[in-house]
Amino acid sequence: MAKSWATFGVDLHLDPTGTQTGTGTGTGAGVRRGLTDALRDAVRTGRLAPGTRLPSSRSLAADLGVARNTVADAYADLVAEGWLTARQGSGTRVAMGAPPTPLRQWGSAVVPPTDTTPPRRLSNRPTYDLVPGTPDLAAFPRAEWLKAARRAFTSAPCQALGYGDPRGRVELRTALATYLSRARGVRADPEHILISAGISNGLRLIGTALRARGAHTIAVESYGLAVHWQILAEAGLRTRPLPFDELGTNQAQLTDESAVLLTPAHQFPMGVPLHHDRRSAVVDWARRTGGLVLEDDYDGEFRYDRQPIGALQGLDPNHVVYLGTASKSLAPGLRLAWMVLPPSLMDEVTKAKGGIDTCGVLDQLTLAEFITSGAYDRHVRAARLRYRRRRDTLVDALAQHAPDVHATGIAAGFHAVLSLPPGTEQSVVQAAAWQGLALHSLSFYRHEHALPDPLDALVVGYGTPPDHAWTGAVEALCRVLP
Amino acid sequence: MAKSWATFGVDLHLDPTGTQTGTGTGTGAGVRRGLTDALRDAVRTGRLAPGTRLPSSRSLAADLGVARNTVADAYADLVAEGWLTARQGSGTRVAMGAPPTPLRQWGSAVVPPTDTTPPRRLSNRPTYDLVPGTPDLAAFPRAEWLKAARRAFTSAPCQALGYGDPRGRVELRTALATYLSRARGVRADPEHILISAGISNGLRLIGTALRARGAHTIAVESYGLAVHWQILAEAGLRTRPLPFDELGTNQAQLTDESAVLLTPAHQFPMGVPLHHDRRSAVVDWARRTGGLVLEDDYDGEFRYDRQPIGALQGLDPNHVVYLGTASKSLAPGLRLAWMVLPPSLMDEVTKAKGGIDTCGVLDQLTLAEFITSGAYDRHVRAARLRYRRRRDTLVDALAQHAPDVHATGIAAGFHAVLSLPPGTEQSVVQAAAWQGLALHSLSFYRHEHALPDPLDALVVGYGTPPDHAWTGAVEALCRVLP
Repeated sequence: MAKSWATFGVDLHLDPTGTQTGTGTGTGAGVRRGLTDALRDAVRTGRLAPGTRLPSSRSLAADLGVARNTVADAYADLVAEGWLTARQGSGTRVAMGAPPTPLRQWGSAVVPPTDTTPPRRLSNRPTYDLVPGTPDLAAFPRAEWLKAARRAFTSAPCQALGYGDPRGRVELRTALATYLSRARGVRADPEHILISAGISNGLRLIGTALRARGAHTIAVESYGLAVHWQILAEAGLRTRPLPFDELGTNQAQLTDESAVLLTPAHQFPMGVPLHHDRRSAVVDWARRTGGLVLEDDYDGEFRYDRQPIGALQGLDPNHVVYLGTASKSLAPGLRLAWMVLPPSLMDEVTKAKGGIDTCGVLDQLTLAEFITSGAYDRHVRAARLRYRRRRDTLVDALAQHAPDVHATGIAAGFHAVLSLPPGTEQSVVQAAAWQGLALHSLSFYRHEHALPDPLDALVVGYGTPPDHAWTGAVEALCRVLP
Repeated sequence: MAKSWATFGVDLHLDPTGTQTGTGTGTGAGVRRGLTDALRDAVRTGRLAPGTRLPSSRSLAADLGVARNTVADAYADLVAEGWLTARQGSGTRVAMGAPPTPLRQWGSAVVPPTDTTPPRRLSNRPTYDLVPGTPDLAAFPRAEWLKAARRAFTSAPCQALGYGDPRGRVELRTALATYLSRARGVRADPEHILISAGISNGLRLIGTALRARGAHTIAVESYGLAVHWQILAEAGLRTRPLPFDELGTNQAQLTDESAVLLTPAHQFPMGVPLHHDRRSAVVDWARRTGGLVLEDDYDGEFRYDRQPIGALQGLDPNHVVYLGTASKSLAPGLRLAWMVLPPSLMDEVTKAKGGIDTCGVLDQLTLAEFITSGAYDRHVRAARLRYRRRRDTLVDALAQHAPDVHATGIAAGFHAVLSLPPGTEQSVVQAAAWQGLALHSLSFYRHEHALPDPLDALVVGYGTPPDHAWTGAVEALCRVLP
């Protein structure tokens, strides 16, 4: 049922089921996306003039019959993108200048199709992007990659350019089997590795295979990526969040779920490693019930305090699916990720992929060459040092300028969780947007049925800004912290 | 319900629903795949010794309770792969030597995961692959492609390496809009182009979007690719074949289908262009009923008798989806195809893609540079000349050595249909396999509910063999023709 909102000349059609809202998906997320799109469009086309004051989130929510948080979130998104401004005492208004370069909307998910709107930045307002999920793209080893491409491409047989093995190129699967065993303690052989176009694409394949087996429910973590939950929902699976505490996600409430999706090495976004007792317990659960553990090892290479925590998959390759990706270690644009599958699941997931490889072979051959030549190890080592330096700068700056804010989850990866005084989360995000600083709140990553009480916090990614902008980004961040 | 066949020590489990047979899909195809896999495995492991005579297809079919054709097809597959041999009067036997290099199973679809079996060729038995659907991979312009990659990669902004526009890179969509308008008469703007991992992947996205709209049935051609029908079936759509005659596919029986999938420029595999009256009529049907025409323009660039036939999409971009691909013009391994979508369908198909780009950006950027620099045009021109020469060699050889066999559909593309005397199709395919010649029969491409009477014919692809092997391939072909 569509509702119409004609205030301020905005012809806003919202479908609370979320099915009619373009690329928006799921109920809450779909409405929020629909609202964001409609408001952005109204500003872009001039139907909402610069300086116009928008209704309060409370009154607009009542008008539309949606949750107040949905409206507040949509406003925060548009403030972060620069279409709206928010100031204490002045409410939310349409920004006076042209919109700045649109920022990414999701840590590792949906980007609005904005390429074709010529990006313009508001004058004298620097933009820093501290949304987590993307590595430093300026540090992508372009020259090394091209060299590897040339070597791989020169030696590849012609047949490599044809319709390929649905699991992906054997060269890459072989290189990964060796690398994952050495670097992550994964028990892998090339036969049971399947290449996918990102971890989200891999989850889609596994979700489809599980649903075809008759699965209905998958347990997930209370904090995580909405796009993953959405993908599982689209495959027909209900997601049920598990409680979270200082030892990580608590598996004790697992019952008859078909699978559980975890980030054991470095919980995303909270940052804690899964306690070793719980690591064993979740594998025990899988053995006892025939359930499956999906181990999302998105940033397993980046650990600063000690040796990387080995993959859970090493405990039981027959009950754990290992998911890794080049999106954090190299670049998301490669669209290359990998799964190590229990042999019993191989055929079903290959079938879900359509029985055909959907990933380009040239990048697969290049990545294989990049790994076997040692260039991948060198790149990861350099990136680890760079992120560690950035993390140290961040921690030092917080100690000096915001002593009440504590950064947690920083022993690994390239994001930190900054705890905030209760009730301040949204105002800090809005103030940050006003500074041209894109930030995500912790609530952005909270499952709608999450069990812990909501915490006020920021999730700050320190991968994205190029090196030369990092100090400025940290300074801008400190200015908006309480 | 699984059946067991213990003859010759083969422990053969078949699931007639096709759901348990690995990557095999669909009832008939699934059983055939399951049988093929089981027999191949039995030969590989020695459970079926070299020289062993297999039961007749009739008696094995009765034993298994499956259609006789399914067994005959499985035998023919394995003969083509070299595991079995078939000789008049001697029946079907396990081959005496090691199996040769496994050949492709589908024109543009599934390849069995054989990478890890070290390929060995039977001594003194040359292998020629005349299965249609793959271009000459030895002619892939590797040096030019690497140069374009270097140029594209050097000038790309860092942001191009991040999570991308779900429609695909704007550089590629812009290059394609210009190219398709010039070369194929497509009315395209970059906003309504969506990049997919091959045409089959594009059909999966459209099928999903149509199903979400409530569609149940899609009309298809009587001859085509089973993998396309299968993909549409997996999306929840029933495929209903339209009659085929000398003017192409007859649209007169279209009623309330949600869409129709056609190959208007060069029917695959029959090779005729859709008659111009029918081109108008099918667009009229779409306008009248709100249906959608899916135009698969898989080899539209390759026409030898005159200027390429313009795309149907030019008649009505609001009712026709144009699908093109780099798989025939460059190489399937790139996994790059494109759709030009009616604006009204854009959001739904983008959503079906998961709201995220799943195609690697490096190849997208390289292809954009390849097109805009003119290298693509040069490559297509050279390939067109090469395929035309091969076609002429084929036609000349047929006239000389097999005057009763007529090649049709040869004004375009890189495959021909060779008509055969009634009742000889399977024996010719088996004799070809004995010569180390992989061929597909026309019945391989026939929809199970196809309306015309079955014709005995071969579909001969002349793209695959490298230039130096072409004369030998034609000679081997002529030896097996009646």
